[in-house]
Amino acid sequence: MKITILLIGKTEKDYLKKELDLFENRLKHYIPVEVNIIPAIKSSKNLSIKMHKLAEAELILKQIKPDDHVILLDEKGKQYSSEEFASFIQGRLNTGIENLLFVIGGPFGFHEKIYEKANSVISLSKMTFSHQMIRLLFIEQLYRAFTILRNEKYHH
Amino acid sequence: MKITILLIGKTEKDYLKKELDLFENRLKHYIPVEVNIIPAIKSSKNLSIKMHKLAEAELILKQIKPDDHVILLDEKGKQYSSEEFASFIQGRLNTGIENLLFVIGGPFGFHEKIYEKANSVISLSKMTFSHQMIRLLFIEQLYRAFTILRNEKYHH
Repeated sequence: MKITILLIGKTEKDYLKKELDLFENRLKHYIPVEVNIIPAIKSSKNLSIKMHKLAEAELILKQIKPDDHVILLDEKGKQYSSEEFASFIQGRLNTGIENLLFVIGGPFGFHEKIYEKANSVISLSKMTFSHQMIRLLFIEQLYRAFTILRNEKYHH
Repeated sequence: MKITILLIGKTEKDYLKKELDLFENRLKHYIPVEVNIIPAIKSSKNLSIKMHKLAEAELILKQIKPDDHVILLDEKGKQYSSEEFASFIQGRLNTGIENLLFVIGGPFGFHEKIYEKANSVISLSKMTFSHQMIRLLFIEQLYRAFTILRNEKYHH
């Protein structure tokens, strides 16, 4: 299995880029990882949120291959503890999935078309965090999951 | 009312320090804020987790004044959405509390003595995040709360 993380809009802050690279490289000790970025749709007064999400959805759909197992990160999703998330990953590893595709959306959530494509929807918190920061939270959590599965020291 | 944030152990990474300063300065437009750091207890093989937490608790207790309203950040706490957290802050603003003291613990959680002192216990997520990163998540959330209360644009 490999993991693909799909981000919408480039990572803005240098420190976030560095930290993301750090965890991406650490993750690669456990599993092949690819981070793909879709350019953000420019907001404009003429573009409603609904149209914004639709335009974004078209770009996301192009990145989803038929056999991908698609997991959305979204406030409306199911919450897991770090241990439960590790088990969730283990479950996916056990089923012969080729590509586990995580999609981290923009500030408005996803269009209905994307929810329809999703195999699971996961929420990191009931709170709204910055969508830039969620990238770091999530990749750290993914790294943490593998250290839990390997019974390594990182996770208390 | 003023807000005091009590951290255990110094902030390790430079980027985190910078981001914390940034949000601290933004927060100060809304409310007086003070960030205090207690030195971390050094772990050692001879120190059980229980003793570690007890030693930490003694240091925390010294920082709590009798009239402080104490809120712990802890995985076992209650979860709030960003809007609910903003209402929570508004509720505290309405009651004439002088100092709202948030305590962000170490990786092992708090000693029972600290839970006994707490007026509330709040959880940012069911997942375990790095205790360094939680500082940034939390201060961003506090800033977000004030922008929500003022009906400002930051929060979508």
